Amino acid sequence: MFERLLIANRGEIAVRVIRACRELGISPIAVYSAADADSLHVELADDAVCIGPAAAKASYLHIPNVIGAAVKSGAQAIHPGYGFLSEDPYFAEICAENGIVFIGPPPDVMESAGDKAITRRVMIEAGLPVLPGTSEAVASLDEALTIGGRIGYPVVVKAAAGGGGRGIAVARDPHQLRTAYLETRRNAQAIFGDGRVYLERFLDGPRHIEVQILADDYGNVIHLGERDCSVQRRHQKLIEEGPSPALTADRRAEIGTAAVRAAEAIGYRGAGTVEFLLEDDGQFWFMEMNGRIQVEHPVTEAISGVDLVAAQIRIAVGEPLALTQEMVSLTGHAIECRINAEDPGRDFAPTPGVLTAYRPPDGPGIRVDSHCRPDARISPHYDSMIAKLIAWGPDRDTALRRMRRALDEMRLDGPGLRTTIDFHRGVLDDPVFCRGEAHTDFLTRRRPA
Amino acid sequence: MFERLLIANRGEIAVRVIRACRELGISPIAVYSAADADSLHVELADDAVCIGPAAAKASYLHIPNVIGAAVKSGAQAIHPGYGFLSEDPYFAEICAENGIVFIGPPPDVMESAGDKAITRRVMIEAGLPVLPGTSEAVASLDEALTIGGRIGYPVVVKAAAGGGGRGIAVARDPHQLRTAYLETRRNAQAIFGDGRVYLERFLDGPRHIEVQILADDYGNVIHLGERDCSVQRRHQKLIEEGPSPALTADRRAEIGTAAVRAAEAIGYRGAGTVEFLLEDDGQFWFMEMNGRIQVEHPVTEAISGVDLVAAQIRIAVGEPLALTQEMVSLTGHAIECRINAEDPGRDFAPTPGVLTAYRPPDGPGIRVDSHCRPDARISPHYDSMIAKLIAWGPDRDTALRRMRRALDEMRLDGPGLRTTIDFHRGVLDDPVFCRGEAHTDFLTRRRPA
Repeated sequence: MFERLLIANRGEIAVRVIRACRELGISPIAVYSAADADSLHVELADDAVCIGPAAAKASYLHIPNVIGAAVKSGAQAIHPGYGFLSEDPYFAEICAENGIVFIGPPPDVMESAGDKAITRRVMIEAGLPVLPGTSEAVASLDEALTIGGRIGYPVVVKAAAGGGGRGIAVARDPHQLRTAYLETRRNAQAIFGDGRVYLERFLDGPRHIEVQILADDYGNVIHLGERDCSVQRRHQKLIEEGPSPALTADRRAEIGTAAVRAAEAIGYRGAGTVEFLLEDDGQFWFMEMNGRIQVEHPVTEAISGVDLVAAQIRIAVGEPLALTQEMVSLTGHAIECRINAEDPGRDFAPTPGVLTAYRPPDGPGIRVDSHCRPDARISPHYDSMIAKLIAWGPDRDTALRRMRRALDEMRLDGPGLRTTIDFHRGVLDDPVFCRGEAHTDFLTRRRPA
Repeated sequence: MFERLLIANRGEIAVRVIRACRELGISPIAVYSAADADSLHVELADDAVCIGPAAAKASYLHIPNVIGAAVKSGAQAIHPGYGFLSEDPYFAEICAENGIVFIGPPPDVMESAGDKAITRRVMIEAGLPVLPGTSEAVASLDEALTIGGRIGYPVVVKAAAGGGGRGIAVARDPHQLRTAYLETRRNAQAIFGDGRVYLERFLDGPRHIEVQILADDYGNVIHLGERDCSVQRRHQKLIEEGPSPALTADRRAEIGTAAVRAAEAIGYRGAGTVEFLLEDDGQFWFMEMNGRIQVEHPVTEAISGVDLVAAQIRIAVGEPLALTQEMVSLTGHAIECRINAEDPGRDFAPTPGVLTAYRPPDGPGIRVDSHCRPDARISPHYDSMIAKLIAWGPDRDTALRRMRRALDEMRLDGPGLRTTIDFHRGVLDDPVFCRGEAHTDFLTRRRPA
């Protein structure tokens, strides 16, 4: 096992990785920007290195500073968390060049998995259901219009380098496709430095289902069931639950097997997520593969009992998986609500500032992953997450009751603070959601709060 | 389901019952003494009634005030928690007379289960293994000495009305028995108002194993596995875990079945605990039956997924059990450490006062049941518990690692505050405990800290 591990991240995921390190007997090293000097992850780590000013580009995304901190502190491994450098194959390569283990998939796999055009090809070859679309980057507007006519509208234009809902646009006719194509190319070039885009048939309001997989160095690949992340706002997940209320046992086994096949096809190693779109007739379509630990990973931890961050680290050390597929046992139901410092009444605008009160809920079936303390600062420089509430129950109804109780119990205050707690309460009381019928268009179909 | 339920208790168990009420859609009503006006349970309840000054006899034990609060607030039921009025059959009768449902076993069962001499007789008739001893109260010192000679030394003198380690004394020869008999009688009369005592063979350092059972109004009785509470100090439990590292699967099934038979024999209803002593050869002996919710109930909740407080309430409403024995599935391992405001270096003397820092651990596998907040007061009038930490893991080793991590993460401070955190750390690092070999004499055999 590693002796020292550097966490190249901040916020709740840095705290989460520190906890996994402690339980594995690893000494955790934090990095922090000047804006995060007083953060909980800095307090909880054994050692902490300042890697630059607040702007992420100058600190959490600044590869030389992060690598320098790891070398200086004697870390043998780096856990990238999610966001920041977690899906940057170049960073993974630099780690390797410096003799540091990057906790994630190998760089070449990251590169393939991160390129939507490559994954499409690989998945089609592996026999996975893939939506009609292009397997190569679209070369021109004319080609886009030809392809749009062939696969049929609506279509979605996706940046090859995008992911997590970023860099996509929907077109319902050739006129819209013209705009969508040009804008997505321009934005993708600006954001990702890679203007390649491809086209795919667009499904109106399917479900978003993702399967958690684990793959080790020895060819063992297992899945730990799925998460239903259909409650989204502009492709950003807000509520996640598992198992999906939309899957029968047979369909669950099928989609799990498909996810394992996808991971095998791409030569995956580590913890990963295979994302699917699910239609009401049970047909599912491969969407993308994510190599990072997901924000919503605690949902799977709650129903499987598997510590996914510890599993990532064990795989990176070279340990074989502790479980076979037959040993995986999923119990009960879990749901996660992301509590953000945002004002749902003003289009979820962030409300950064200092908390004057922070008291998370607790008790049976409740877990809270957070970096906050009663005096925590929600920095305008980073995402506005305050905490993730995770509720587990032996069945979905109990899990939802627990989550409502936890939302009621949570105490948050601060000057100008608005949170998503009331928004979550509203969703949890919505009959469509309660019946397990939320699709990805659920929030746009709801009346504004 | 009840609409309003009064919690006749304070501290963490009052908070625990409030949480169960919220999840069941019941409006929880708190009671509090003048010393507890600022307590968390008062804040979290929908309504709160002051029932007297700090002294428990004038408030939490004052039956007319408690009943008055229930009647005044329109509560249909009273949950007594543990301690205070939870094992007082007279209180349960008064509840019934006032048309209020007492959440616990029926008064006559409470009376039988609370009387060690009666339970001995019932259990012998039901075929449970009961240690050699008297089934009737011992009439005189002479009789005690005769019986002592017959069953063989060491013997233990137990107050018929005692329990939970109170009102017992061990004698290793006739001379010690003389003192033990007279003192236990005197103390039992003073403490319980009932001087009856009985004699039993004393086991040197067995294990303490207790089985959680649930029994409904319709004759259904199930067990939810056992807790090993062998880490005790003067018969007070300090660390509890489940499953017991000392039981084989066969022996676990046997002791579970015995516990169900015990509950059936006494006509039990509600959640209950059947306590056994376990010898190294696997022989177990019935010790006592408890009708209250136990402090250590979260251990069972963590491995069974069953909400025991909700189950108590559902049974009291008249619902049949939701589970059959075959549906009970125990997963992984859980351990609970009681964090008290006590100084282990001064014989666990309480260190009451105000907390200036309170930050519980969180994250995967950790649950904290507590009534504390950053400004909480540990009152000298009541027990000195700050929080219960519960760690779950897929196996015992993971649960212990998590508990160590949680102990390290917990932040507590206050003027003059001493806690049992370091004590627990020591036990968790003790090779005897780690090997799962702690018996009830574990702490006395350890060198003082």
